[in-house]
Amino acid sequence: MAKKPKTAITPTRAEDYTEWYQQVVRASDLAERSPVRGCMVIKPWGYALWENIMRELDDMFKDTGVKNAYFPLFIPLSFLEKEAGHVEGFAKECAVVTHHRLEKGEDGGLVPAGKLTEPLVVRPTSETIIGDAFSKWVSSYRDLPLLINQWANVVRWEMRTRIFLRTSEFLWQEGHTVHATEKEAVERTQMMLDVYAKLAEEYLAMPVIKGTKSEAERFPGAVDTLCIEAMMQDRKALQAGTSHFLGQNFAKASEIKFHSAKETEEYAWTTSWGASTRLIGGLIMTHGDDDGIILPPKVASAHVVLMPIIKKPDHKTQVMEFTESLAKELREKFYGGRRLGVEIDDRNVGGRAWDWIKKGIPLRVEIGPRDIAENSVYVGRRDKKHTDKASVKRNQFVGEITDVLDEIQRGLFEQALTFRENNTMIIDENKAFYEFFTPENQEKPEIHGGFSLSHWCGSGVCESKIKDDLSVTIRCIPFDDREAEEGECICCGKSCNTRVVYAKAY
Amino acid sequence: MAKKPKTAITPTRAEDYTEWYQQVVRASDLAERSPVRGCMVIKPWGYALWENIMRELDDMFKDTGVKNAYFPLFIPLSFLEKEAGHVEGFAKECAVVTHHRLEKGEDGGLVPAGKLTEPLVVRPTSETIIGDAFSKWVSSYRDLPLLINQWANVVRWEMRTRIFLRTSEFLWQEGHTVHATEKEAVERTQMMLDVYAKLAEEYLAMPVIKGTKSEAERFPGAVDTLCIEAMMQDRKALQAGTSHFLGQNFAKASEIKFHSAKETEEYAWTTSWGASTRLIGGLIMTHGDDDGIILPPKVASAHVVLMPIIKKPDHKTQVMEFTESLAKELREKFYGGRRLGVEIDDRNVGGRAWDWIKKGIPLRVEIGPRDIAENSVYVGRRDKKHTDKASVKRNQFVGEITDVLDEIQRGLFEQALTFRENNTMIIDENKAFYEFFTPENQEKPEIHGGFSLSHWCGSGVCESKIKDDLSVTIRCIPFDDREAEEGECICCGKSCNTRVVYAKAY
Repeated sequence: MAKKPKTAITPTRAEDYTEWYQQVVRASDLAERSPVRGCMVIKPWGYALWENIMRELDDMFKDTGVKNAYFPLFIPLSFLEKEAGHVEGFAKECAVVTHHRLEKGEDGGLVPAGKLTEPLVVRPTSETIIGDAFSKWVSSYRDLPLLINQWANVVRWEMRTRIFLRTSEFLWQEGHTVHATEKEAVERTQMMLDVYAKLAEEYLAMPVIKGTKSEAERFPGAVDTLCIEAMMQDRKALQAGTSHFLGQNFAKASEIKFHSAKETEEYAWTTSWGASTRLIGGLIMTHGDDDGIILPPKVASAHVVLMPIIKKPDHKTQVMEFTESLAKELREKFYGGRRLGVEIDDRNVGGRAWDWIKKGIPLRVEIGPRDIAENSVYVGRRDKKHTDKASVKRNQFVGEITDVLDEIQRGLFEQALTFRENNTMIIDENKAFYEFFTPENQEKPEIHGGFSLSHWCGSGVCESKIKDDLSVTIRCIPFDDREAEEGECICCGKSCNTRVVYAKAY
Repeated sequence: MAKKPKTAITPTRAEDYTEWYQQVVRASDLAERSPVRGCMVIKPWGYALWENIMRELDDMFKDTGVKNAYFPLFIPLSFLEKEAGHVEGFAKECAVVTHHRLEKGEDGGLVPAGKLTEPLVVRPTSETIIGDAFSKWVSSYRDLPLLINQWANVVRWEMRTRIFLRTSEFLWQEGHTVHATEKEAVERTQMMLDVYAKLAEEYLAMPVIKGTKSEAERFPGAVDTLCIEAMMQDRKALQAGTSHFLGQNFAKASEIKFHSAKETEEYAWTTSWGASTRLIGGLIMTHGDDDGIILPPKVASAHVVLMPIIKKPDHKTQVMEFTESLAKELREKFYGGRRLGVEIDDRNVGGRAWDWIKKGIPLRVEIGPRDIAENSVYVGRRDKKHTDKASVKRNQFVGEITDVLDEIQRGLFEQALTFRENNTMIIDENKAFYEFFTPENQEKPEIHGGFSLSHWCGSGVCESKIKDDLSVTIRCIPFDDREAEEGECICCGKSCNTRVVYAKAY
């Protein structure tokens, strides 16, 4: 039996993708499970990614006229009940506050006391509580559009959790807008989806398909849910952001009305849109390899680590001076609107470079006396093999670093796009479709189970049959293919002209 | 009877300070009450202040090596109980989650269901849950110091609430650090207090007194609590930030231990420190006047509003072009590390200028055809009388705007400092002390009830007597006066050498 190649993460993606994910989250020091069921601790290396995502999204939101505000964590039960579809969608996963203090119980331990008259739900999303505020803020067409965003934590009590992908508490932003016309609200829904797609593709190097959800997959209470869907390396889909056109449903539930220019009183049209820490899970599963995560330079908090090599004590001064002056020079430079992030790791321990490989830093630089003698540095790129390192003149390294980072950023995107294209099939026959999503029966399972572009007649019956049979869902009705050619529903064979994206999903 | 002068806020500060505060929060559009008991909605104009405070503090924290992370919203009851003093301090104000879903009750409405085995407390502060993570992160002296901060919401169920000053939910940051030695932890406690003092004085233009809390006023579980105390315009004190030296109390409660360089196993030393949206309440009460709030330029999200005056339709193009080119020119400039914030208000309504006065924008600029003919603008400053406006050449206005903002910033600080000094008395006699804090009995109440610098023997009995008699507490033992001259305790007359700050407080 051939010797298994050494990898920093065990098991490898091919061996056990699910377990690989858990191990890579741990090895890269991004986050960990907490003692509170389903909640995570986001560690500094992971939180820095979130900070960068927040800043980038926040700038894009503000460029479209959105302003930030903050609304209460708690939602009175009666508010949640205002929109019937909405409460039904969230009732099964609500954390409920019922008491407002603790007192000594019979056995001396503390027990909840001070029962609330009306229970409070920890927000799973904020349409109803924000709608209540909006009903007071909006009275005339002159108050519109109202464009508000909130950065917040939300809680959805999940039974099966996985760090970043599905946790009981997660961090997100939720945008909420109010418009005078349906047309404007629909345009805003689309505009915010485009913002998410831009973040995903240009910043996280994660190619996405934009589209509309089927009725079954819609946000509870929405008229239409738009989404971006990405393919992970196990060929499953990840929904990476959603933008909802809410019609007048929530305006009616919360009484958001305005006096029009024609002096009539009208219900407003609203939208909501959100993206969350789940994006970090997507980042890991799009770019990670068997040695750890790989950070696209635009979202990396640190771009390069300098590792001085000091084998003899009398080299120390010289090597450290060179290292620190290089760090200083690099920190003067900008990449993607931020200063270059430079770490110095002067721990004299084995495995130092591997720590940074696992953490996904784009560039590693070794600096020893010989490099200094040649005014060079020894550079490794995270997107290449770990042994594939090269000596580069210091000036050249500094001069070209942002170009190299751009090349890495572009390369990661191209690689993910190629992967998705290689694993996306146009399937028009029911038998082939079932085979595609049943890889365990196949000779070559590795080419099965990606995205299938297949026709759907629009019936919920066909949609559930596929879901029940294969655990495969309609990820979206892609925008590009709305005017697709005639074809036959992959389930019932009925003639139709909508080709959708079918896949297993997170 | 003389005619009451027109003010934008009714009542005035002198008439009813408490009601003035509520009205000024409303008129300035900073925040509003929510339908959830004790929780507030922070509106965009108010949240922008918080964003600026966050960015400033975050930069200062990071400059001292602190990194951000995120920990769970929920704390298992058993965790809170680990530190006896701590849980006692917070038990009476905890929101408790007891159920994790909703289901249809007998009357058809939704009721809490899915009872949790162990109730979860919504974090009032996070020492215990973060301590649990730290106990896993720290094993060697090489892991120390560990310097972590979290931006988060917290909940303390308050019975009497007031927007920004005391709300059941508020936004804050909480820093938590772990050190190998007591000395280092004490130094960090002091360092972070200095950061808060710098933010308050240089950024919020709010003079503060730095000092130590008495035992009775300490954070539950702390060995020592340092604080900054500011004087509001009703001469009451506001605690604007605290930094706690926790000794080994929480390290013992959470088992945060490390192997020292000498191979012994030791409990670590920890600190925690926090500042919250309460600072915005302090800002309002330090600088507001009877026309609204006054924003120090360094924290203002917008520095100047341009108000085009269009009396005839055929002036419109010219006036708007001038206005927009001026806005563009101003937005190229920087103030306090940020781009100048420029608003254009082209609403053709009466009271437009008053809206901006109430909102506290530092500079108002009117632009009409006559101004344009002279290449001038007509400028009003929020720190001057609203009628005190002047024509300034456009080039001069643009050239000097950052100097003018600096002058406003400095002026606000000076004014607040003078106010505090004028209302701070050195009082050495019991009778005078009681009179000072009983203004309703006095001929000139306006010179009573500020800060009294008086001796304290260190006894909790004297401290509570003063509190019971006068609702006056020891705000802090100021650092400057630690080596104060001998004197007699203002309560019992015993000889001692500690002069403290006594005041009524928020």
